[in-house]
Amino acid sequence: MHILIIGGAGMVGRKLLARLARDGVLHGRGITHVTVHDVVAGEPPAGAPFQTSVVVSDLSLPGEATKLVGARPDVIFHLAAIVSGEAEADFEKGYRINFDGTRELFEAIRRVGGGYCPRLVFTSSIAVYGAPFPEAIGDEFFHTPLTSYGTQKAIGELLLSDYSRRGFFDGVGIRLPTICVRPGKPNKAASGFFSNIIREPLAGKEAILPVDEEVRHWHASPRSAVNFLVHAAGLKAEQLGTRRNLSMPGLSVTVGEQIEALRRVAGAAVVQRIRREPDPTIIRIVAGWPRNFDPRRALSLGFKAESSFEEIIRVHIADELGGKFVA
Amino acid sequence: MHILIIGGAGMVGRKLLARLARDGVLHGRGITHVTVHDVVAGEPPAGAPFQTSVVVSDLSLPGEATKLVGARPDVIFHLAAIVSGEAEADFEKGYRINFDGTRELFEAIRRVGGGYCPRLVFTSSIAVYGAPFPEAIGDEFFHTPLTSYGTQKAIGELLLSDYSRRGFFDGVGIRLPTICVRPGKPNKAASGFFSNIIREPLAGKEAILPVDEEVRHWHASPRSAVNFLVHAAGLKAEQLGTRRNLSMPGLSVTVGEQIEALRRVAGAAVVQRIRREPDPTIIRIVAGWPRNFDPRRALSLGFKAESSFEEIIRVHIADELGGKFVA
Repeated sequence: MHILIIGGAGMVGRKLLARLARDGVLHGRGITHVTVHDVVAGEPPAGAPFQTSVVVSDLSLPGEATKLVGARPDVIFHLAAIVSGEAEADFEKGYRINFDGTRELFEAIRRVGGGYCPRLVFTSSIAVYGAPFPEAIGDEFFHTPLTSYGTQKAIGELLLSDYSRRGFFDGVGIRLPTICVRPGKPNKAASGFFSNIIREPLAGKEAILPVDEEVRHWHASPRSAVNFLVHAAGLKAEQLGTRRNLSMPGLSVTVGEQIEALRRVAGAAVVQRIRREPDPTIIRIVAGWPRNFDPRRALSLGFKAESSFEEIIRVHIADELGGKFVA
Repeated sequence: MHILIIGGAGMVGRKLLARLARDGVLHGRGITHVTVHDVVAGEPPAGAPFQTSVVVSDLSLPGEATKLVGARPDVIFHLAAIVSGEAEADFEKGYRINFDGTRELFEAIRRVGGGYCPRLVFTSSIAVYGAPFPEAIGDEFFHTPLTSYGTQKAIGELLLSDYSRRGFFDGVGIRLPTICVRPGKPNKAASGFFSNIIREPLAGKEAILPVDEEVRHWHASPRSAVNFLVHAAGLKAEQLGTRRNLSMPGLSVTVGEQIEALRRVAGAAVVQRIRREPDPTIIRIVAGWPRNFDPRRALSLGFKAESSFEEIIRVHIADELGGKFVA
């Protein structure tokens, strides 16, 4: 089978590709070819049991999506997006990449015709929800995004449902929790500290905590994110029905609970590397974010996430640090 | 003040224009100019105390929306859409008119710049909801449209919220109930019978009832629809906050209750003109439609609809039949 990963050079895309290379199969079918698309060149995985093609282009430009789907991939993972902060800072770029890019892809698939109907897995976001919301957001709560990014994801979900209902493709949209522990360097995303306060101390470095410990948020590990994508690719259309966009499971914890878990996993010396430095801007932004979900439908469809923050930390130590940290 | 009505040649647009011509003012401000836009020529109202310009063009074509908003109208009513059945039958046309047309309009307003921020009233639809849903749909229930038309309206709502949040315009989206009694000839819309069984008997003609009397649906008169538009134009931005799309009030009645109301208003001989002829296709379509709403937010913002179906019938007799019917 041929798999297309759009946004394949990003953090989740790279991990998905590595997982496919390790498995060699997807839901029992051998993988013969993976096309990795992004605006920068993705990295073919070493020793993969399939051919990897790397394509660099701007999906939002006319004709680019058509080229990508011309080879009729069996499964398409659409992970490409510019992030929330950038979509908010540059209105036109956000709509062009996150909205037109997604629509161009969906239209290109529709125009292939001849009975072509691939499984398409789209990563949406909990940013489709905007405060005020219930303490735990249920599957039937409405979408009132408070960012352009969230608006673009919510529109992508609506298009995915309609194109699937029409039989142009067989779509599944998955709303990812905040990915934690995100590997790499600290970035300026307002959500960055949720990962920074774990990753940096484990690497022997100081991390800044800009909010207080009562802040509650919704997390899943990068490994879980990849599991969600792979699981979504195998769902049967009849399990999905007409409601094809799902809030993924995750773990709702406070920052204080994150820190306690770090203490239990790595010890007090590691926790000492977290420095409190309240940031009113980040405090205000984070106050409008979802704290918890009640993702019954996804759970009933077999999606699984971590059940403790210790587990999330241990996944990070295993997958990113080769099992070791700076005590 | 200058008012632009997009879709001004349609049934609701014509009634809105007549109302503006009668009032001469909108929320205390004198109307100096109304531009009536549609794909066919609108009719300037006789004796209007303002100048009327009639513009015929396709809003979805590049540049057309820019021409319309160049004169910086103070209030824009965006009523233009192709109907549900046509958007379902012609996928590309539906997206072009209902989706690209709306986006072109919103973008044209954004590009005017220079602090231009008109009030924009957008007619959405209860078709943003798809079964299964609760017996009465609350304000926070999610949107899972089961038609392309409903998808296009739901996307319009999301864009309206985001453009308003960004300060490009000051939008209000209103989800109209099924308009009953719709004047004119019987049409092929699946919802047509809700009006046909009242309008045709009152005109001395036979009407066909294709569903059984237990079918419950959500109605408001054309007069109420115009009231909603006018009321929406006067809401303050601070009353709306970030949640700018509202389910309008209406009346939830069964077909049996509609017929009983007709009997009370017009007598048994009129009711005798309704002929039962079950249509399995219409029965199936209507089974997936909303039956009732709990539109608390709109009620709290002062929107009002009819409180009995007799009232809806009397509005029809007064507004369309000059107070008389064929007994």
